[in-house]
Amino acid sequence: MKKVLLSAVLVGAVVAGAGVYAQSKGKAQAPQPKDEDAQLLEQARQFFQPLPQVMDNPENPITKEKVELGKMLYYDPRLSKSGLISCNTCHNLATYGVDNLPTSIGHGWAIGPRNAPTVYNAALHTAQFWDGRAKDVEEQALGPILNPIEMAMPSEKEVIERLRSIPEYVEMFKKAFPNDKEPLRYENIGKAIGAFERTLTTPSRFDEFLKGNTKALTAEEKKGLKLFVEVGCVACHSGPALGGNAFFKFGQFVDYWKATAPYVTLDKPTIPVDLGRFGVTKKEEDMFVFKSPSLRNIEKTYPYFHDGSVWSLEDAVKIMAETQLGRKLTEEETRYIVAFLKSLTGQIPKHALEVPVLPASTDKTPRPQAK
Amino acid sequence: MKKVLLSAVLVGAVVAGAGVYAQSKGKAQAPQPKDEDAQLLEQARQFFQPLPQVMDNPENPITKEKVELGKMLYYDPRLSKSGLISCNTCHNLATYGVDNLPTSIGHGWAIGPRNAPTVYNAALHTAQFWDGRAKDVEEQALGPILNPIEMAMPSEKEVIERLRSIPEYVEMFKKAFPNDKEPLRYENIGKAIGAFERTLTTPSRFDEFLKGNTKALTAEEKKGLKLFVEVGCVACHSGPALGGNAFFKFGQFVDYWKATAPYVTLDKPTIPVDLGRFGVTKKEEDMFVFKSPSLRNIEKTYPYFHDGSVWSLEDAVKIMAETQLGRKLTEEETRYIVAFLKSLTGQIPKHALEVPVLPASTDKTPRPQAK
Repeated sequence: MKKVLLSAVLVGAVVAGAGVYAQSKGKAQAPQPKDEDAQLLEQARQFFQPLPQVMDNPENPITKEKVELGKMLYYDPRLSKSGLISCNTCHNLATYGVDNLPTSIGHGWAIGPRNAPTVYNAALHTAQFWDGRAKDVEEQALGPILNPIEMAMPSEKEVIERLRSIPEYVEMFKKAFPNDKEPLRYENIGKAIGAFERTLTTPSRFDEFLKGNTKALTAEEKKGLKLFVEVGCVACHSGPALGGNAFFKFGQFVDYWKATAPYVTLDKPTIPVDLGRFGVTKKEEDMFVFKSPSLRNIEKTYPYFHDGSVWSLEDAVKIMAETQLGRKLTEEETRYIVAFLKSLTGQIPKHALEVPVLPASTDKTPRPQAK
Repeated sequence: MKKVLLSAVLVGAVVAGAGVYAQSKGKAQAPQPKDEDAQLLEQARQFFQPLPQVMDNPENPITKEKVELGKMLYYDPRLSKSGLISCNTCHNLATYGVDNLPTSIGHGWAIGPRNAPTVYNAALHTAQFWDGRAKDVEEQALGPILNPIEMAMPSEKEVIERLRSIPEYVEMFKKAFPNDKEPLRYENIGKAIGAFERTLTTPSRFDEFLKGNTKALTAEEKKGLKLFVEVGCVACHSGPALGGNAFFKFGQFVDYWKATAPYVTLDKPTIPVDLGRFGVTKKEEDMFVFKSPSLRNIEKTYPYFHDGSVWSLEDAVKIMAETQLGRKLTEEETRYIVAFLKSLTGQIPKHALEVPVLPASTDKTPRPQAK
């Protein structure tokens, strides 16, 4: 089926590449490379799409007011019990939306069980968290606030109490949710943060390539892209985010902990074997099943996998090929694929890193609690 | 002596105020208020100066390259053992350079013994830390990095090792310290962060007032300013930063813990009585002696005092009058002084909150260690 589709698309590619042909006709010497580029472009377009400028949600339309509020909340450590931890602590926008730690550190210095995924381009995912337990970024944003080993707020009520004590927030919620009888609701915190996150796309040279500028990638990157498709990485990493769109068992051919063990060099706390999506669905077939992560900015979002056990992108690529595709990549193949993956490192939108001055607490604001 | 000086300055004020006089001559009705304003201005100018635009240090000239590097280091959590804590964690530039916690939370969730002072305008201080144990911001910046309950890096060498493994940093240190044989030295980390901090001034309406625009303050704020001078707050809070320029015993008339106890409502960890500057000099006269904090942005840098025990600015003002000046302020006096203090809330410079994208670690970068 895939082969049939591929042939059909390739015919299209040749037609689409006609302009390139015509241009190269005069120089009989080397028409071949351009032809190959056009073919690769068409092949790539089967599996990937350029990033949209914003990632819309009809149920939570993006407005300037909502994004402004969402950004403020994102950076506000008062969403945590201690007053120390904000969304940005573990999803640092200055480091491509992650903390670059194996697994995150939360309230009371608790070490979490899973690696913090990036918020950049995350709104494109089919579901949120490694196990997909939240349907979208709006729902996701509300989880860590109440998680006792993350931001550890004792209840929704107490989050609202804190925000309600700060007049600037009351005003901003009104403006962001003008049709709500009660704008300052827990759900709306998620909507505001979600709206902000829906603006966090990071277009890269690969998007230029997908839009038709085949010179946007180097020869090595193109080899990597070709391999990425042919080896079968695309089976789990496709779409505009190159991943994030479905769930897969980690360890199709080799148990993942057997595959990763030789690469783990860091002393890290013992983490119990992670059953993945099984924890959400309780279905046996979901054991060790995880959402495939997006590969956008993968170069910057080390360490890798749900347990952050592997630090080198080369190692991660090899492990993936071995565990998921049953294939040992050569050093050269690995190098090409990594080169391609690095072309996915994108531009961080300027507004993401323009931090708002946070409004002061008042004498009504419940105090932070370190313990 | 002070009185003599005052008279001399007032003569000057009348001369300086001549324009105001001339203008008001035509309207014989109400020359008095302007006269009072001019007097207050001259009185204020005896004790206070407007903030400089930058706070220079001849031993560490400010350059664009140094400031850029310093800002990056300021925001980089890799200066901490865990990879979680940056300078900005406790001196959050979005909350006026503090964490708004009684005392800061550091490595391993250690609760520190003292309240984090703000970095805004800090370069004006005569010395750094509550006990003045560092001579300037350059020296100060290097302390918390190695403090086991703050950022907890094991040694200078290991800090340098991390930075040296990141080519972008190597390059930036070269550019920031072009005449150094070895630009990437521990001392230069302090110089770069110091240079950045020397750009962090927050001019407010009070500076407009000091520059001659007596309308920049409201009538209530002016009453507060007058009281602030006359009650004697200026004894410890003068100069461009309204404080930070000398050391004083906390508890001149009443022991400070006796004075603050009734205001402390938050459960907080038991903190041993703080001997202040005695810890640095070992001189008996330095017991309970602290650097007077700057009052710039004091409205935003709650909770107050070296132990962060008091949350309300009104309470803090009353306690100060009682412990330091032996005077009980009325509610009205307190209100006026607080109104004046709020006029010290300034503009945060835009560049402070434009966070740089941090360069990625490499396979040579030693890993963060949570434990």
